[in-house]
Amino acid sequence: MNPRGPRPNPSTEVVDGIIERASRYLLDAPMGSDPVIAHASPSELATAFAATVGLGFADDAAAHSVSEVLASVDQIIDYSVHTSHPRFVNQNFAAADPVAVVGDWLGAALNTTAATFEAAPVFTLMESAVLHKLGRMVGYVEDGVSATDTPVGVPVLPPGIFCAGGSMGTLLALQLARHRLQPEMTVRGASGDRLVLFVSDTGHYAASKSAALLGIGTEGVVKVATDHEGAMLPDALDVAITEGIARGQTPFAVIGTAGTTVTAAFDDLDAVADICESRGLWLHVDAAYGGSALFSPTHAARLRGVHRSDSCVWNLHKMVGMTQQCTALLVKAPAQLEECFATHADYLFQSDKLYADYDSGDRTFQCARRIDVLKLWLAWKVGGDAGFAARIDHAVAMADYTRNRIAESDVAFVPIVAGTFTNVVFVWVPPHLRPLAAPEAVDLDVLTELNRCAPLIKARLQAAGTGLIGFQPVHGVNSFRMICMSPKLQPSDVDALLEAIETAGNDVAATQ
Amino acid sequence: MNPRGPRPNPSTEVVDGIIERASRYLLDAPMGSDPVIAHASPSELATAFAATVGLGFADDAAAHSVSEVLASVDQIIDYSVHTSHPRFVNQNFAAADPVAVVGDWLGAALNTTAATFEAAPVFTLMESAVLHKLGRMVGYVEDGVSATDTPVGVPVLPPGIFCAGGSMGTLLALQLARHRLQPEMTVRGASGDRLVLFVSDTGHYAASKSAALLGIGTEGVVKVATDHEGAMLPDALDVAITEGIARGQTPFAVIGTAGTTVTAAFDDLDAVADICESRGLWLHVDAAYGGSALFSPTHAARLRGVHRSDSCVWNLHKMVGMTQQCTALLVKAPAQLEECFATHADYLFQSDKLYADYDSGDRTFQCARRIDVLKLWLAWKVGGDAGFAARIDHAVAMADYTRNRIAESDVAFVPIVAGTFTNVVFVWVPPHLRPLAAPEAVDLDVLTELNRCAPLIKARLQAAGTGLIGFQPVHGVNSFRMICMSPKLQPSDVDALLEAIETAGNDVAATQ
Repeated sequence: MNPRGPRPNPSTEVVDGIIERASRYLLDAPMGSDPVIAHASPSELATAFAATVGLGFADDAAAHSVSEVLASVDQIIDYSVHTSHPRFVNQNFAAADPVAVVGDWLGAALNTTAATFEAAPVFTLMESAVLHKLGRMVGYVEDGVSATDTPVGVPVLPPGIFCAGGSMGTLLALQLARHRLQPEMTVRGASGDRLVLFVSDTGHYAASKSAALLGIGTEGVVKVATDHEGAMLPDALDVAITEGIARGQTPFAVIGTAGTTVTAAFDDLDAVADICESRGLWLHVDAAYGGSALFSPTHAARLRGVHRSDSCVWNLHKMVGMTQQCTALLVKAPAQLEECFATHADYLFQSDKLYADYDSGDRTFQCARRIDVLKLWLAWKVGGDAGFAARIDHAVAMADYTRNRIAESDVAFVPIVAGTFTNVVFVWVPPHLRPLAAPEAVDLDVLTELNRCAPLIKARLQAAGTGLIGFQPVHGVNSFRMICMSPKLQPSDVDALLEAIETAGNDVAATQ
Repeated sequence: MNPRGPRPNPSTEVVDGIIERASRYLLDAPMGSDPVIAHASPSELATAFAATVGLGFADDAAAHSVSEVLASVDQIIDYSVHTSHPRFVNQNFAAADPVAVVGDWLGAALNTTAATFEAAPVFTLMESAVLHKLGRMVGYVEDGVSATDTPVGVPVLPPGIFCAGGSMGTLLALQLARHRLQPEMTVRGASGDRLVLFVSDTGHYAASKSAALLGIGTEGVVKVATDHEGAMLPDALDVAITEGIARGQTPFAVIGTAGTTVTAAFDDLDAVADICESRGLWLHVDAAYGGSALFSPTHAARLRGVHRSDSCVWNLHKMVGMTQQCTALLVKAPAQLEECFATHADYLFQSDKLYADYDSGDRTFQCARRIDVLKLWLAWKVGGDAGFAARIDHAVAMADYTRNRIAESDVAFVPIVAGTFTNVVFVWVPPHLRPLAAPEAVDLDVLTELNRCAPLIKARLQAAGTGLIGFQPVHGVNSFRMICMSPKLQPSDVDALLEAIETAGNDVAATQ
């Protein structure tokens, strides 16, 4: 008998078994020629799990034995996509920093919510400290105000809030923008004005999803034309605003994008800010992907002008390798958060409790919030600014290597955009179609064949486990998007991926 | 040299050190007379961390040594609130199931997003299976449709989606409700109609926060009167709807609450559903807290009528002990999710890739979503339905024990509501004020003294680390709210908490 009382949970064997498996996976994750995924169809997965605990739950779901559950844990690992594998180039996250992973573990073990100081004293201060540093990096915090000027070394009112993902950050930012224009709106409801916001036609769909949710409607989102690389054309923005006003709409915000989803293009934020200033519009920067370039002395200039924005969303779970999710919404005027979002719930934000002025929960929409800051704080303390900078520089170096390989491929691979950051967008050309005309001159039959190739090639790579790479239409062609973002990605991985695409492509071409 | 390539991260010592500390904390968490918290002020915390790595980040933040970082990890643990301690009765979550904690760890190690089958094959199917089971528990899924009737044992289109917390679930549900009334709204924007929704005056503030964000405005939220225990008065709802229409407003939704934040009251959902049916209104049930009563054969009837609702939000990170966060939004007509939220982003939801029909990401607002289902799936497989049921039954038994202790206290403690579920709401009465008149008959001087007592008593418990318990105004009196929810809570803990309140109260009374 434990003198401190009986241990209430009898599942220690399961817990130990999962810790052991998760730790082993983390410290010795698949690499090199290990498969990126053991691909299985939904029905194959269902069959596999039926041999252990089953995927589903009966109406009277029974408990399973330790050995059955641990066998299912092995299956979970075996059948999952190994996002830390260097040949996972499918998405705008990859290869989480192991320090971040175990920082997340520590947060789960301490399991609390970031809403109040009393329930999260350490994490409230950490969040404030990290937001203050991120805000200074963006340029929101005056140079004279350093973190150490405040009595406890971190500000009571930080320039932002952590939230559950980039889309939510954009949603909250657009609400702030609307609130500045219509301060009575949160109480009285939206006026009859037809509000309109502007984002590039390569910008993230969070703009449209937010407009729908805010009651503005997707027709209130004007997609501004972009250059060939995917960056907003500032002149087109200015024209679009004029046209919106002429249609009787009320412009209220512009979203500038720092790192688009497909080509990782950066809008010219200084030029966009000029227009926003002259028009009196809120500038929100979607730096979900590209914000992390600010860590790199080499690449920070891609965000030149970001300090002139009113808000900025930055996903640290993308380029700097935090686990899902770690999103900072940064705002230039932090007091706006409480003005726009607070409801002063008296069961949670009691003004008569200790240090209530540090409570962050009423400065956002969410009530309970997971402690997303801890992993970032730890990884940052371990590696310093330089640790994150190295991640960015390595990523762009690998993308440059890939671009060079494509240029040298002698018509086998054709870039669809030039690209200068982490994303390489290209097609593989079947031998009988080489050399391919310029994409805009490709005739319809050829285009149809190219468009069929990409999914079939991808599926073969998935089936073989040799790599996971995304595709989507760019300039009308189903193009591969290789996101060179993993710190583990090496030239040998790039070579292997291109070779795998070539091999699968030849196979596809031969069977068409 | 590792034949599979160099290990890119040199921080193995830090990673190992954090794993060791997090595991030790999880498996041997503070209990009994261990402090619930080592209370420190913001400046004391800043001073403590200054001795290791510092809370903040300089403009050129340096990397820290392994020993410095691990010393800070020890501080993080030491200064955090021990939410798994049985005497943490402060909030509507407590004592996460260790299986859930390590399930969360495994999810972080596998780090992917739940948006697509290709990036999350196992988790997509798990989410579908769990939502199907939860939907059957709520009564949304016809009895004839069992999980095993579908080809892979789980449905392609599950009755809901996981989302980042209860507030977000309510936000999405209200958007669904508005969309049913105004299907053109997501495209064209809200019409000029003054929409109005109804929720009890004890319901969660997510209703108001959502109304503000949706552009409806907080004036579009009518707070319906409740009985003494905190449950909505159905007659008052009916009157409120009539009054809203008379004011020219357009009712569109009612939120029924299953387990209010303060008194854990359950609205009579059958009576509320009668009104919603006769009025043609969307019924959303906020079962964030009380939904888990459905696990218990003894307590499931508290939600009688929930199957008649259109949507329901259920936080599994509350009563059944998942880590933050694990929220299911359940909907009766799942096709509405895609109709309301989809934008068909072609870089992510390509229809020409494998098994794209399983992709869940376009059925919600968020883009990337953390894998919140894995921990729930694992804990459920380990304990079965009975495991969760035991958690609920123990909680109510401990609340009943507390209520009995208060009844026996002979005027030292006075209940403010009767309560029948997990929350015990009471005041401690200073000796010179005993016996206290009925709360509604208390005169202002006495009330003022009672209202000053609660925060001072709480602060003393915090300072001593003997317990963490919330307070808030209930029927005009600053009342303690003891949430008896931890599976670790035992009669000896309740006794110790009441004794600590009494001791602190006498101390407060003596120094006033």
